[in-house]
Amino acid sequence: MPAPKHIFDPPFNIIRCSHVTLGVTDLARSRAFYEGALGLHVEEETQDALYLRGLEERQHHSIVLKKSAMSEAHHLGFKVGSEEDLDKAAAFCKAKRLVHAFVERPFQGRTLTFIDPYGTPIELYFTMEKREILLQQYGLYKGVQPQRLDHFNIFAPDVQGSLDFYAGVGFRLTEYAEEDGPKGRIAAGWMHRKGNVHDLAFTNGRGPRLHHTAYWAPTPMNIIHLCDVMATTGYLPNIERGPGRHGISNAFFLYVRCPDGHRIEIYSSDYQTMDPDHEPIRWSLRDPRRQTLWGQPAPKSWFEEGSSFAGIEQRDALFKANVIVAN
Amino acid sequence: MPAPKHIFDPPFNIIRCSHVTLGVTDLARSRAFYEGALGLHVEEETQDALYLRGLEERQHHSIVLKKSAMSEAHHLGFKVGSEEDLDKAAAFCKAKRLVHAFVERPFQGRTLTFIDPYGTPIELYFTMEKREILLQQYGLYKGVQPQRLDHFNIFAPDVQGSLDFYAGVGFRLTEYAEEDGPKGRIAAGWMHRKGNVHDLAFTNGRGPRLHHTAYWAPTPMNIIHLCDVMATTGYLPNIERGPGRHGISNAFFLYVRCPDGHRIEIYSSDYQTMDPDHEPIRWSLRDPRRQTLWGQPAPKSWFEEGSSFAGIEQRDALFKANVIVAN
Amino acid sequence: MPAPKHIFDPPFNIIRCSHVTLGVTDLARSRAFYEGALGLHVEEETQDALYLRGLEERQHHSIVLKKSAMSEAHHLGFKVGSEEDLDKAAAFCKAKRLVHAFVERPFQGRTLTFIDPYGTPIELYFTMEKREILLQQYGLYKGVQPQRLDHFNIFAPDVQGSLDFYAGVGFRLTEYAEEDGPKGRIAAGWMHRKGNVHDLAFTNGRGPRLHHTAYWAPTPMNIIHLCDVMATTGYLPNIERGPGRHGISNAFFLYVRCPDGHRIEIYSSDYQTMDPDHEPIRWSLRDPRRQTLWGQPAPKSWFEEGSSFAGIEQRDALFKANVIVAN
Amino acid sequence: MPAPKHIFDPPFNIIRCSHVTLGVTDLARSRAFYEGALGLHVEEETQDALYLRGLEERQHHSIVLKKSAMSEAHHLGFKVGSEEDLDKAAAFCKAKRLVHAFVERPFQGRTLTFIDPYGTPIELYFTMEKREILLQQYGLYKGVQPQRLDHFNIFAPDVQGSLDFYAGVGFRLTEYAEEDGPKGRIAAGWMHRKGNVHDLAFTNGRGPRLHHTAYWAPTPMNIIHLCDVMATTGYLPNIERGPGRHGISNAFFLYVRCPDGHRIEIYSSDYQTMDPDHEPIRWSLRDPRRQTLWGQPAPKSWFEEGSSFAGIEQRDALFKANVIVAN
Repeated sequence: MPAPKHIFDPPFNIIRCSHVTLGVTDLARSRAFYEGALGLHVEEETQDALYLRGLEERQHHSIVLKKSAMSEAHHLGFKVGSEEDLDKAAAFCKAKRLVHAFVERPFQGRTLTFIDPYGTPIELYFTMEKREILLQQYGLYKGVQPQRLDHFNIFAPDVQGSLDFYAGVGFRLTEYAEEDGPKGRIAAGWMHRKGNVHDLAFTNGRGPRLHHTAYWAPTPMNIIHLCDVMATTGYLPNIERGPGRHGISNAFFLYVRCPDGHRIEIYSSDYQTMDPDHEPIRWSLRDPRRQTLWGQPAPKSWFEEGSSFAGIEQRDALFKANVIVAN
Repeated sequence: MPAPKHIFDPPFNIIRCSHVTLGVTDLARSRAFYEGALGLHVEEETQDALYLRGLEERQHHSIVLKKSAMSEAHHLGFKVGSEEDLDKAAAFCKAKRLVHAFVERPFQGRTLTFIDPYGTPIELYFTMEKREILLQQYGLYKGVQPQRLDHFNIFAPDVQGSLDFYAGVGFRLTEYAEEDGPKGRIAAGWMHRKGNVHDLAFTNGRGPRLHHTAYWAPTPMNIIHLCDVMATTGYLPNIERGPGRHGISNAFFLYVRCPDGHRIEIYSSDYQTMDPDHEPIRWSLRDPRRQTLWGQPAPKSWFEEGSSFAGIEQRDALFKANVIVAN
Repeated sequence: MPAPKHIFDPPFNIIRCSHVTLGVTDLARSRAFYEGALGLHVEEETQDALYLRGLEERQHHSIVLKKSAMSEAHHLGFKVGSEEDLDKAAAFCKAKRLVHAFVERPFQGRTLTFIDPYGTPIELYFTMEKREILLQQYGLYKGVQPQRLDHFNIFAPDVQGSLDFYAGVGFRLTEYAEEDGPKGRIAAGWMHRKGNVHDLAFTNGRGPRLHHTAYWAPTPMNIIHLCDVMATTGYLPNIERGPGRHGISNAFFLYVRCPDGHRIEIYSSDYQTMDPDHEPIRWSLRDPRRQTLWGQPAPKSWFEEGSSFAGIEQRDALFKANVIVAN
Repeated sequence: MPAPKHIFDPPFNIIRCSHVTLGVTDLARSRAFYEGALGLHVEEETQDALYLRGLEERQHHSIVLKKSAMSEAHHLGFKVGSEEDLDKAAAFCKAKRLVHAFVERPFQGRTLTFIDPYGTPIELYFTMEKREILLQQYGLYKGVQPQRLDHFNIFAPDVQGSLDFYAGVGFRLTEYAEEDGPKGRIAAGWMHRKGNVHDLAFTNGRGPRLHHTAYWAPTPMNIIHLCDVMATTGYLPNIERGPGRHGISNAFFLYVRCPDGHRIEIYSSDYQTMDPDHEPIRWSLRDPRRQTLWGQPAPKSWFEEGSSFAGIEQRDALFKANVIVAN
């Protein structure tokens, strides 16, 4: 795979991934998990939704839990650099014939939604209501002490296509997993806007489906404590994988499932990537250290299960990778 | 100083230090500090007392906060090996003409109190009511996650005398600080029964006064978190010294003062000492690493202030050490 | 199982487990592992043996790697309280008709070896040459920063018999795993002399074989770092199990295999047990949290493989436990 | 102080701070400190210079130690977004009548140096030779495990002037310390390009002088280990301040001095700042938590001493702040 050209003016300026809305079936049960176990801060509770954020996040929320008849994911939210970028994005969508619309969102300014060419629902905005940073309100720290939303990972039926589309709007590749040989196909890719390993990653599989949403925690010790807390407060079955070290991104990770099955990664220890001449790291699909440096296998559920996006049709993956990958 | 003889049958068998009673002037204010900031578990609250314990402690309490007109310390509690040891201890006190008495204590079996030759009030018992261990109830962890009471440190007017007395009842010296030269006097000593650096230490100074009570925490990270919590929840003035590393005992330490001024050490990282031929470590009073391996000076208050024992007269130290020591 | 009587005078006084000799086939390869990866301090290398110790250990060695034709374990070493205890132990062995002999060991004083009733070779001594403590020579810290040998774990064909024998010489039970029901048999037990969870544990299985030797490390962070080091310096296949949290003992653990297959546990986070009325914790064999609080299964090798003791015949276990246990 | 306008096209695109050259008088002595104690990786040693980098840095070096007759600092290096940016920067310097020149630097592509309006020597470049990332070569980890250069801090005689100049080339303010009252002057400011708290900070004082160069370390535990290592390997006098927590930036910090007196900060725990509407945090000069959340005073040397820039004249500060500030 040729290294993508990094230096160009994207059609509009995405700053970073910023929030997601997840449909859940029982708000009280979800609050117990996301606030009580994970330690996210409940910024606001309405009759049909919970708004939560991490300790350093100054915007109103990074995750919205919305009362739903079934478990499902909604639009993935990205912050753009200005109001003007929203108009540029709308023009881009029109030119590309992507379904798009300006919509109303509580606590948020002007918001553009669109469906990417592979079915992923995206939401762009520039302003969200602000709240006081909690980073130095240490008395509020609990659970895994989640600091901020870090990235989304998507099951994608056409990983190469998705990578190409997002490279076209300014995302830059940092790591990828590829079949060996002259015709090796890419089975997974990690892309960023904000200067660390990723804002958005794609994994070969039936989709689009949301594989996971990741929160960044400061140290592996916080993640070990979360394991201990979950294992002894009734959430043992919700620990799906880890803790461990990914070869990819060097992340110290833990994957947990919320009561509705949405997968949350707790993520630590990656690195900076803002140099324009930063070169992506290639991993062979055959290299087992890619997924777990220490060699522990992931459970089947982790390779197969993900959250459906509300109202979005899914397609099978273009090819069957020998090993399905994600992190 | 000649190495003390280690191997002999003491007149009665003390297992370990186990609890202390501190007089406090406002129970609600004390509860906010000991439970809310430090993270001790409140086992019981009565009209005039709070009983707290650490996460691995199975006995009813390791600290009792008792409503008092003034801030003061009461008897230092030690667990003995059997009921018979209490009778042996009473006989020992009688032979030595020490003030002693069997007394009633809530939650505790037969209890013998005595005043040591230098005025320190001691309390011995064999049984205390038991409670379930909380070590694997990780959902209850908070503050510095204190696991157990570790030791007491006493301002002693005659350190050599105190060391000799406690060596006579089976305590073994692990470290000591001494003036240089052929007539060098001992300015501080650390003694144990339970197999780590200390259960009881003596520091040259007007006394007897309780310099501090120490709780053991699992890692330095817990102590750093406590600093952050205290600094941002109104307890900044209660941080007295640290965090830092003692040369003596290798402890990673923090000293805090409760709202009534009692000093609590949070203590981590010491070592085992149960070998009968374990030799004590000598520190020169001139070696600055003794107190703080990293070189930060302790504040004046730490050298001068301590809790008076209720009803006990104090004497000035026999000599003025160039540098007063404790840890 | 009735709680064992704790308070009695044992026939001789064992202080703690202290060292082991392991036969290895290639000293240079073993040194690379034990010193280079684990971080043990090489105290001495002779033509046919390596002597290593942990950072706080003042005795000459806690592990001896001895050049052998094959991988095998030798006597398990325990320190006793005095020279007199060796004579008492010899008398005990004679009375019990156990094979025993006084032998010469380099760096060690008078040494008594014996074979316990189930075939385990034990070695008792009072004095070993001393070396300077390395705990504050932080420039020497490496690998997992092992501080001290903590315990041995044995595959035992008759766990109840082994527990009874060692209770008879003063070991005290802290935790055990048992079949449910009125005739439930004990499948594993943990016993101590030094005041933490164990010096010696027995696990149902063909034996006697050495399941593992454990070193204590100060924090889970050190263990995570060891995983990272091993995974990236050619020792990935030597990581067998973990990191994880045992329900039993609350240990944060990692099991690794040396180049000759001997299993080493790195162990952290247990608790104190010196109270004479400390009651053992019972675990049902059906409780999965016993082995791993977080729910990760152990590999088959961990249940089946162990080091043979040189020259000792093995027997099958008396019964087949539903789940074989150890930690 | 009015919030600066964030969204504008700077005259040229600086990506991040990237390297510094420090004049040292004894290369071997410096290598022992920077490699042996701090744990930086020596990428290359020539007859008169040492080139070092952190564990995640892929460029040839982030610090150059150059044999000099005296201790002094040289140009502060920043990476720009493209070769074209260098030409834009040269045009900018010409328009602003700043002393500037294209120069040759080993291992580096085209390099533009200039002197800012207050005397600070700056160096811009786009390409540097690359080396393999060491982040997953865990066997090489040592010292404080420094991952990357994070920022520079400058004693500035006119802080407001410096902030204005760097705001004009695209730096964005994240935190600042100000006198109270309607005419309150700014005594310190922190500015970034790369998306965390700072690349470059200015502190009121005689200058320009380099107050410190900071490396980022992953956790406070690494910093505590460095204290222990330095205190016991002859570098105790080189520990100047900390460890502690800054209110500003939330950094867990340690300040050390190299054998030539250059100040290095080890820095951890800050937060992300890439949002265009990210608002700077104001600290009153009277708020003691600004400097140290936990209340420990900094030594006098820390307020007064800094590295002179080779060949640059210094000026006194425009005003005397009540409390000099930096971090």
